Formats: sequence, structure tokens, C-alpha cells
Amino acid sequence: MRSLHFTADSSSNGIRERDFTVGGVPGVLWSPASGADRAPLVLMGHGGGHHKKHPAMAGRAQRLVTGCGFHVAVLDAPGHGDRPRSAHDEREIAALRTAQAAGEPEGPVVVRYNARLAETAVPEWQAALDALQELPEIGADGPVGYVGIGLGTAIGVPLVAAEPRITAAVYTCTWPDVLIEKAQQITVPIEFALQWDDERVPREAGLALFDAFASQEKTLHANAGKHLEMPRFEADSAVRFFARHLGGAAVSPA
Amino acid sequence: MRSLHFTADSSSNGIRERDFTVGGVPGVLWSPASGADRAPLVLMGHGGGHHKKHPAMAGRAQRLVTGCGFHVAVLDAPGHGDRPRSAHDEREIAALRTAQAAGEPEGPVVVRYNARLAETAVPEWQAALDALQELPEIGADGPVGYVGIGLGTAIGVPLVAAEPRITAAVYTCTWPDVLIEKAQQITVPIEFALQWDDERVPREAGLALFDAFASQEKTLHANAGKHLEMPRFEADSAVRFFARHLGGAAVSPA
Repeated sequence: MRSLHFTADSSSNGIRERDFTVGGVPGVLWSPASGADRAPLVLMGHGGGHHKKHPAMAGRAQRLVTGCGFHVAVLDAPGHGDRPRSAHDEREIAALRTAQAAGEPEGPVVVRYNARLAETAVPEWQAALDALQELPEIGADGPVGYVGIGLGTAIGVPLVAAEPRITAAVYTCTWPDVLIEKAQQITVPIEFALQWDDERVPREAGLALFDAFASQEKTLHANAGKHLEMPRFEADSAVRFFARHLGGAAVSPA
Repeated sequence: MRSLHFTADSSSNGIRERDFTVGGVPGVLWSPASGADRAPLVLMGHGGGHHKKHPAMAGRAQRLVTGCGFHVAVLDAPGHGDRPRSAHDEREIAALRTAQAAGEPEGPVVVRYNARLAETAVPEWQAALDALQELPEIGADGPVGYVGIGLGTAIGVPLVAAEPRITAAVYTCTWPDVLIEKAQQITVPIEFALQWDDERVPREAGLALFDAFASQEKTLHANAGKHLEMPRFEADSAVRFFARHLGGAAVSPA
């Protein structure tokens, strides 16, 4: 089994930030600076073209760490952040740019590219979770949640379907095509957010993905607005969702 | 203009409860027992067959009064609670029971009955709001919200369409048939909750009603489960919605 290799360690505003690698994959672990007792862990998968410390990740982590006292870990997805792009990555990104420039649907490119990234990323996440649970402040039997944004949903649906240690998940919408079958295997509580006027992912496709989850407790949050206009209060809602399902003393987020 | 006529006044657990009538319509006003400064007002419309102090109303009021320091007012709908049933009420209720006993769709009866109740209730609510705003602890220019449950939505959609003093509204799902046109006139922020597996109101009908609101800010909350299984955290979500839109120092609800 591969261990975490810490490469940087700093604290500010009550949050300890540790960079690490595990099996060569770079990640970040955010924790309460107070060095609290054992606490739940939330894994977060960043969006396409983003990276482990993108503000959307750092902002959500800040809420989870200071609001709930949780640990939050993010990995760079394959070909993203500090990881090199393969020739395949470069070809797919070029195909995406070509489709976008021509005003053609980007879905077909994104779906097949994200599916390929997920094949690599799911075992990476499982190895990272093994290593994170070796840390005494996380532990092998503590609650684990998952947050996925876009690409992080394309990775996170097969991950949660395969990984019984993850007991609650928050997703934002992505193309459902290859995910429906995996979503049908998921039974843990789900909070799923989509944009009602999404100009990229068709509304019916998002509703179909939500419908596919087999979870007895699942909640859809649909907000008026386009793909990138998700309101910030959805990040606060995710904090309350994890406070309910992973335990921990939730503080009202600022 | 008709004034409020208070008929009972008591306090417990930090909440002052005053029964009143206005133009012969019975209502209840819940307020902070501390007798605070001027505070926002939330009007609530109860569900069909329920009444102004049904636990669904009292529970939501408790959260809004103790969590936000707001005032909350509920009126008995026509033919409900302490109000007499007309011959028309009796006929429609008998028709509903007959449809239910025969396993026939109840929608056609409920839609026409609720529409008739709304015609009476909307001007009653407007007169009650006039009178409530005469109270110094509410005032004529303070923020006003509306919560509707079932029948309370059938009354509340035409009410909010007609009443510019109401600047934010929370609805639960009901049959949209006669409400679509009024919903298209509503532009204030909306939170709209439906049950994904509702056995009474078809899913597509609920989504169509949400779609009809012209509001720039609107959020759909769809939860797994049947008509009567809406999770309690939706009541907490409504409190946060009003804290955002009506101002006031929101406290994390218990």
C-alpha cells in the first residue's frame, strides 16, 4: 500500500494546508489548524480544466473545515493541475476547443474524455483514501463524503458506486450518458445541483441523472441561471448536508 | 379599512401567540415574546383540510420567530379551521372523498375547488396585510414574505402575483393547471419544493409550475419520496431563504 508523502505544510485563518503526493498523484489536505480529534473526511473532485486548489475547491473546503471541523482532500485529476498532459489529453482538449469554436455540441467530446479520465482517477482516489485513512486524525473507520463539480461528478459517480467507504455525496450536473448505469448502483444520500437554464447540459439530461440514483434520500437543487451561475448558497447547503450525514458539530456558515 | 381584532394573547418558549379576526376571518399572529423592534412579516397559507395552527404551520412559525425574530401570520382558509363550511364546500369535499374512494384522480376536484377558495382568500389576505401593517412592530414599509403549503400555494400564487408588498415566496407543489398564468407574472425570488415520487401531483406538472415563474432567482428543491414525505430540513431551508431575502439576523435553526 502507498503512503501519503507530504511536500508542504502551512496554516492560516484556522486552516492547515498540507500538499502531498500518493503514488505520484499530487493532492492537498485541508484540516482544522487546531489539530482536533479524529474527524470526518470529505473528498472533492474539481471541475474540468481546473485543479486541486481552484477557488471553487478552496472556498468549499474553508466552509467544511471551519464550519464543521472536517478534513477535506482534493487530488489533481489526470492531465490537470500539476500533472503532465499526455498526447491523448492534448488531442481531446484540441477537439473540445475546435467544437467550441465551431459552435458545435461539446458534449460528445467531454463525455468520452471524462470517461477516460475517470477510469484512471477512480483507482487513484481509492489508493488516496487508503493512505488518508492511515492518518490518526482521520482513521480507518470514520465517515467519508464526496463532492464532485463537473468532471468531479464524472469521476465521482463511478467512484461512489465502487467505494463503500463513501457514505454521502454532493454532485453538480454533468452529461449523464455514461454515468446512468453507475448512478443506479448508488444508494447513499445524494444532494444533486443543476442549473435550470444550463446552456451546455440539457435540462432533461440533468433530471435523468438525478432520477437514476437509487438512493432513498436524494435531493435535487435546481437554480435559475446558466451553467456557470450556480449561486453560492449551494456551497453552504452542501456543508449542512455533510453535517447531517457525516456527523460533526455544524456551525452556521458565514 | 378593517383593523385586527385580537381575541387571545399568550406567550411560551419565547413566542407570543395572538389570535385575531379581521373582517370576520380568523387568524393567528406569532411574534418574538421579547417584543422586539420592527421586524419582517411572513404570511403562511396552510394545506387543504388543515387550519391556521396545524403543526406544519406552528413548526415553521417557531423556526421563523425564534430563528430570525420575524412575525408570522396565518389565516384560516375559507371553509377551513374555525370557519363554517358552505353548501358548496360540503359538495366539493364529498366529490373529493368519492373520487378518492373510487381510486379516481383527485386533481380535477382539487383544482377547481382550490381555485374557488383562492378567489375568496386573495382579497382576505390583502385586507389582513393592510391591518397587520398597522401594527407598530410590523409597519407599512417592512419586508413581507409568503409560505404556501398545497392549498396555500393555490392561494399564494395568485396572491403574490397581485400583491407587490410580498417580495419573496416559498411554495410546495400543487396541481399547476390554473396557476401557470399567475406564476408567469411573478418575478420575486422563489423557493419551490416538490416530491420526486409524488403519487398525487405528476412530476411533470410540478416541474412545469416551477418553470413558469418569471423570477430571476428561483430554486427548485426536489426530494425523493411521496407527497407527504417532504423532509423536515426543507422547513429549515425556508428559514434561510427568508433570512437572505427579508433581512434579519438568521440563527442556525435547531
